[in-house]
Amino acid sequence: MPTLDQYLTAHAAQFEAELCDFLRIPSVSADPAHKNDVENAAQWVDAKFRKMGFSSEIIPTSGNPLIYAQSPEVPGAPTVLVYGHYDVQPADPLELWTSPPFEPTRRDGNLFARGATDDKGQVLTHINSAQAWLDVHGRLPVRLKFLIEGEEEVGSQGAEEYLAANASRLACDCVVISDGCKFSRDIPSITYGLRGIAYYEIRVTGPNRDLHSGSFGGSVTNPATTVARILSAMIDRHGKIQIPGFYDDVVPLTERERQQFAALPFDEAKYFAELGVERAFGEEGYSALERRWARPTYDVCGLWGGYQGEGAKTVLPGKAGAKFSFRLVPNQSPEKITAALARWLPEITPPGAKVELLDFHGSPGVTIPLESRYVAAAARALEQAFGCAPVYSREGGSIPIVGKFHEALHADVLLLGWGQDDDNAHSPNEKFSLADYHCGIKASARLWEELGKLA
Amino acid sequence: MPTLDQYLTAHAAQFEAELCDFLRIPSVSADPAHKNDVENAAQWVDAKFRKMGFSSEIIPTSGNPLIYAQSPEVPGAPTVLVYGHYDVQPADPLELWTSPPFEPTRRDGNLFARGATDDKGQVLTHINSAQAWLDVHGRLPVRLKFLIEGEEEVGSQGAEEYLAANASRLACDCVVISDGCKFSRDIPSITYGLRGIAYYEIRVTGPNRDLHSGSFGGSVTNPATTVARILSAMIDRHGKIQIPGFYDDVVPLTERERQQFAALPFDEAKYFAELGVERAFGEEGYSALERRWARPTYDVCGLWGGYQGEGAKTVLPGKAGAKFSFRLVPNQSPEKITAALARWLPEITPPGAKVELLDFHGSPGVTIPLESRYVAAAARALEQAFGCAPVYSREGGSIPIVGKFHEALHADVLLLGWGQDDDNAHSPNEKFSLADYHCGIKASARLWEELGKLA
Repeated sequence: MPTLDQYLTAHAAQFEAELCDFLRIPSVSADPAHKNDVENAAQWVDAKFRKMGFSSEIIPTSGNPLIYAQSPEVPGAPTVLVYGHYDVQPADPLELWTSPPFEPTRRDGNLFARGATDDKGQVLTHINSAQAWLDVHGRLPVRLKFLIEGEEEVGSQGAEEYLAANASRLACDCVVISDGCKFSRDIPSITYGLRGIAYYEIRVTGPNRDLHSGSFGGSVTNPATTVARILSAMIDRHGKIQIPGFYDDVVPLTERERQQFAALPFDEAKYFAELGVERAFGEEGYSALERRWARPTYDVCGLWGGYQGEGAKTVLPGKAGAKFSFRLVPNQSPEKITAALARWLPEITPPGAKVELLDFHGSPGVTIPLESRYVAAAARALEQAFGCAPVYSREGGSIPIVGKFHEALHADVLLLGWGQDDDNAHSPNEKFSLADYHCGIKASARLWEELGKLA
Repeated sequence: MPTLDQYLTAHAAQFEAELCDFLRIPSVSADPAHKNDVENAAQWVDAKFRKMGFSSEIIPTSGNPLIYAQSPEVPGAPTVLVYGHYDVQPADPLELWTSPPFEPTRRDGNLFARGATDDKGQVLTHINSAQAWLDVHGRLPVRLKFLIEGEEEVGSQGAEEYLAANASRLACDCVVISDGCKFSRDIPSITYGLRGIAYYEIRVTGPNRDLHSGSFGGSVTNPATTVARILSAMIDRHGKIQIPGFYDDVVPLTERERQQFAALPFDEAKYFAELGVERAFGEEGYSALERRWARPTYDVCGLWGGYQGEGAKTVLPGKAGAKFSFRLVPNQSPEKITAALARWLPEITPPGAKVELLDFHGSPGVTIPLESRYVAAAARALEQAFGCAPVYSREGGSIPIVGKFHEALHADVLLLGWGQDDDNAHSPNEKFSLADYHCGIKASARLWEELGKLA
């Protein structure tokens, strides 16, 4: 009988082929045109669990379906809930992809495809590690429950509703989520903090049609100018967000946290060089890591209006719009931000323009206790798999459901990212390093073992 | 032998059919994809002149070709140069057109098509009136020269170069241009002032790729936010343009002009109601007519960046851009504005963003002397054709070449618009009223007669 490591080596090609199958399904949750693809991805995951001998079911929701799968109870051993998502970000702008986003392509030891790192590849590490345990040892050292959803990129509404109504079914000792990055190329991390998010769209209308900017310009509010004015009013030249009351609930960084961040092996110059950015810019008085991990921020995610083609068209557009988000830190409430924004918008809108505010989805930030024995077990598993002790970091992105798990299940949430900062999650040419994929499977297999020892 | 009026009535259907032929050619000068259509439109105009017995030639330029056509000298009578353009604005957004932009369609006494009023329909009024004179009287009462260009919507570079090099060939006593509107539905006007224009595009780049707005947001300059910041910085809440020195050369409105504007039968409430705008907005301290005709203004004509699709994509875009224009009043120089803008841009650009400024085209504003005998002749012709004396108005739009005619030919320029404010020039559903088309032909025929009497 092979050892687990031998098994993983022998099955590497098969694990890669399965990931490619999964990535070929364009399960874009933001675009209703991909509804069928989303269904297909859910069925793909369900079939995989059934083949492994898990009990699995596809659960309809108000939006896209969930997959819930579980293995038998292991008496005396912990129960672990693995959460992940099978939906992916939209792939556009398509013209910037070197290879098509839904035809997984190998280059330089990486697999390029939309969803490779976020989150299909990382989800599969935990499924494959369970498969390996079952094939090698005929059993799992812990009971595993999997909740894999299809709306993570658009707000997780279905999963949140299911979680709220089915806390006893999902009951567990800890939650494991791999939907992020290692600290650096070779250093794994355990993420103990996530930012929240509040995401909006504004649709601005002015005159009832596009007008000639010469004949009418200057006498009528211009919706494109209005969009620029509103977006610009959100933040000042020092990087401070201007919505009245925005910072009211922000817990300041402690001196200890700032020292801990500063001690991490993070090279700002290298970070900006890799991004092609000549000078840092952000909220005054904070380092780049502090801005990304522990301060609320504002970004325009899209804007449009008027003539976008070649050449000069002298038009005063009848409408224009934008999408933008605030990243929130723990203790800030997306609902309070939405209310404050809605109150403030009329003040910054010029006369004659109408602004519609669409509230897309929000989630609060969260921090996770570092003292738990599950965190300690994870640290041991990561060190064995990656040959390097993990650092304890925070993350600027949001996994909306993390705070809900914490609340509903009273379980510690282990955030163990296997990806890299330059994996282009949400960008063209998303990738997942095959080495990271296989190390992730190994780390996951070790994690079940270390958690099993807590029995 | 029929009278001129009888001839015009008998040939109305033929004049309409010819306009439809002309409008079917999608001669969009801003889009290189329409290069062949632009050539076809030039050939159509040239063929029309030849059929009338004018000497006509297609003149290549650095850009799109010109047509120059002329009739024989009329001893002792004035020479009149008619200027117009056969190029049209882009038709998008296509989905807002009720009928396809290049399939002329009759509805409610109007002909709907891109270019109907701007400027193909108005150009044809002067060609058809000449045709009518030749067919009815076998002669023209003045010598006519026609210069019809194909780059009016993108800066008139070829025509300006030709004008500068061929002033003696184009020599004339007055210039006639119909590329605008009547004062109101039933009141014709002689326009004695035009605004100039300075049109720009900015292209902003930040990080070398689209980034996840959670993981990176707040630490890197966001190009979409930067576009909004730059566009918004151009103008304050009181409608004052902020570029240092922008107003230096603006000649203030005199009290007499303000009184004259105020006395015109212009109903602000009706104007805004027709545009669907609830409240006026513009430079503080000026009326809507003053803002449109005699004050410099700023408009964003287009903006783009990031995700414009459905739903929420949490992206920090790698680039974004915008197009915007300033309408200038006489005595302001587009070149000085460009220099001032280029100097100021770095001051309003946040660190880490790169901004490229593209200067599309500019032209100064112009005013025209009201005392000339050609203006008086035009007033008589308009009153005969429209049954109402013209008012003397100004126009917010720009006809870049008007100032050049004034300079190069030392000739009075008669701006006689046959269109309506709601003709949707530069907008979807551009139209030209068939009544205005036929009255324009009649007014033009009377104009040749009145100008001929000046011999």
